[in-house]
Amino acid sequence: MSSDDFRTIWLHPDDPGVVQIIDQRRLPHEFHVHDLRHWSDGVEAIRDMYVRGAPLIGATAAWSLYLAALHSEFPGEEVERAAKTLLESRPTAVNLRWAIERIARVTTETSDADLADAIRRDAEAICAEDIEICLGIGRAGLPLIQEIADRKGGGTVNVLTHCNAGALATINWGTATAPVYLAHQQGIDVHVWVDETRPRNQGSQLTAWELARNDVPHTLIVDNAGGHLMQHGEVDLVITGTDRTTRNGDVANKIGTYLKALAAFDNDIPFYVALPSTTIDWTSDDGVAGIPIEERDPEEVTTSDGMSGEERISVRTAATGTRVSNPAFDVTPARLVTGLITERGICDASESGLAGLFPEEAAG
Amino acid sequence: MSSDDFRTIWLHPDDPGVVQIIDQRRLPHEFHVHDLRHWSDGVEAIRDMYVRGAPLIGATAAWSLYLAALHSEFPGEEVERAAKTLLESRPTAVNLRWAIERIARVTTETSDADLADAIRRDAEAICAEDIEICLGIGRAGLPLIQEIADRKGGGTVNVLTHCNAGALATINWGTATAPVYLAHQQGIDVHVWVDETRPRNQGSQLTAWELARNDVPHTLIVDNAGGHLMQHGEVDLVITGTDRTTRNGDVANKIGTYLKALAAFDNDIPFYVALPSTTIDWTSDDGVAGIPIEERDPEEVTTSDGMSGEERISVRTAATGTRVSNPAFDVTPARLVTGLITERGICDASESGLAGLFPEEAAG
Repeated sequence: MSSDDFRTIWLHPDDPGVVQIIDQRRLPHEFHVHDLRHWSDGVEAIRDMYVRGAPLIGATAAWSLYLAALHSEFPGEEVERAAKTLLESRPTAVNLRWAIERIARVTTETSDADLADAIRRDAEAICAEDIEICLGIGRAGLPLIQEIADRKGGGTVNVLTHCNAGALATINWGTATAPVYLAHQQGIDVHVWVDETRPRNQGSQLTAWELARNDVPHTLIVDNAGGHLMQHGEVDLVITGTDRTTRNGDVANKIGTYLKALAAFDNDIPFYVALPSTTIDWTSDDGVAGIPIEERDPEEVTTSDGMSGEERISVRTAATGTRVSNPAFDVTPARLVTGLITERGICDASESGLAGLFPEEAAG
Repeated sequence: MSSDDFRTIWLHPDDPGVVQIIDQRRLPHEFHVHDLRHWSDGVEAIRDMYVRGAPLIGATAAWSLYLAALHSEFPGEEVERAAKTLLESRPTAVNLRWAIERIARVTTETSDADLADAIRRDAEAICAEDIEICLGIGRAGLPLIQEIADRKGGGTVNVLTHCNAGALATINWGTATAPVYLAHQQGIDVHVWVDETRPRNQGSQLTAWELARNDVPHTLIVDNAGGHLMQHGEVDLVITGTDRTTRNGDVANKIGTYLKALAAFDNDIPFYVALPSTTIDWTSDDGVAGIPIEERDPEEVTTSDGMSGEERISVRTAATGTRVSNPAFDVTPARLVTGLITERGICDASESGLAGLFPEEAAG
């Protein structure tokens, strides 16, 4: 992970009819590679969160369309059918749509006979570009950590993150974690506070796992603890990812991100959001009113899964019959965001900030 | 619960050598009454959280001192020894000290032969006074809910609470819940958003349980969700409890309370803290710097307990070896608190506000 010998999605080396992913639902207790053989396996992987994270969701959709073309007598029609179902699998993920529309352009330009090959090349390109984007985010964010390390005379730089915007959410390196991995590789003494991230525990189960795998010092905390740590000078910098950023810099991310942004603001701690520009929604300029928030299964809240001896099981933590609300995301208003870390550099969380880095998109 | 036929601690009706409590660690899945036979059972009950909540901790300490006097040849010395150990069982709970000091005054005034009887009368008085205090808080807070109901033309009043400052945290009625129970009894349409309250899940396991038992409509949410609900107008009022309030109105409460206060402030939602005046620390005027915050067992964070079939078990949610920080409380600065609901009425969260209601304490 976060080196060239590891990825989160790849074509099977010996069987071009199979795409492989890490079944992230089994982490951190078990490392299991899952085969996608039909495009509906890709739908299942996205919907049931074998894979999550905006870039990886997009790549999984692209590879699923490759499978659709490969295994059908009528590739064009099958790709269209698959695209429709894939689009509905996670409504909030904007670059699910982006990847599908990109592949759709390939489809209209290509004959049925060549379609699978053409989509495969594009899926590979999407992955290669994502790795470049993550490294770009890493290079852009690295000076933030370097400056704090310098100011502290080489003392530990404490970064807090929420959910998993790590290598596991992308093809490699991650978005929020890329600056951290680069800092760690350069010998900067960096330590990460990992929010547990209820209800699905992506922090304790994914972020802590990949940081451990890369030997980056880290400490797990409950989602409730971040404000207290900030009050006591234990956090130097917050970096989170985002599922969707509006053109004015509002940030939709995992539920609870908004609370950490409020605490950072209240304690004068820089709050940065790392994002590939593919997750910017140029059509929206009001995150709170405009971004649809997915309401997920109540069982995510009333149950908790983990290891009992050697077995992974789910336990019911709340009484049966307890009514639950389970919004998956919240929106952090731009006014609370110190800056956006993109593959082209850092900008203010504002329309002019984003337009400065992405003039071609802002104009369109 | 929240009626006269239910309490959280009582003397065994047939055996004055036994004090009984609800083992709250088994809720919501099992209702189990636990016997305290020796004062060390009381220490265990407080330290291992069979009982929690400032008022109930104080009452449990008082009853433990009764057991110390009752079962010893040298009651005075035994009470002193028990008091010392009890004081160390939960360092943040200010009215643990309050109850112990109150009993200590009885001890110095009473002969060894009469000591157990005298402490029993005082423990009973502490319980009776606490019930009166909770009802006083309820009567003081009720108009806040009534006014919102009136403004909404009888529409549902949505109250958010964190942790359990309910009947289970007191002898009966609760602090934060007392206004809710009174409103519900008066036919006001009140609904409670119940924060799960990681890491110990007091919201999902205690608050949801006691609200269900009293037929108060409620919905369980993860701790991360409150900010999002506030942004979307789904919360009319926040009421939490507190373990300790400084003379200037800073509030120490369960970890994560500060984050909810920030969100309420950001969305112009009233944030009230309900407290018996026994939890005011008149010697401190800086909560963030001055209140010691207990660091609890990492296993609370890395494990989750619940039902697997008919059995209650604990599962390990994080990978083995994961480093954890687990602060139990945080401090909400007075500037974020709309008001304090006490047994003598509501006041500003400020030195002058508290002094207005409790002039005799403020002067001392």
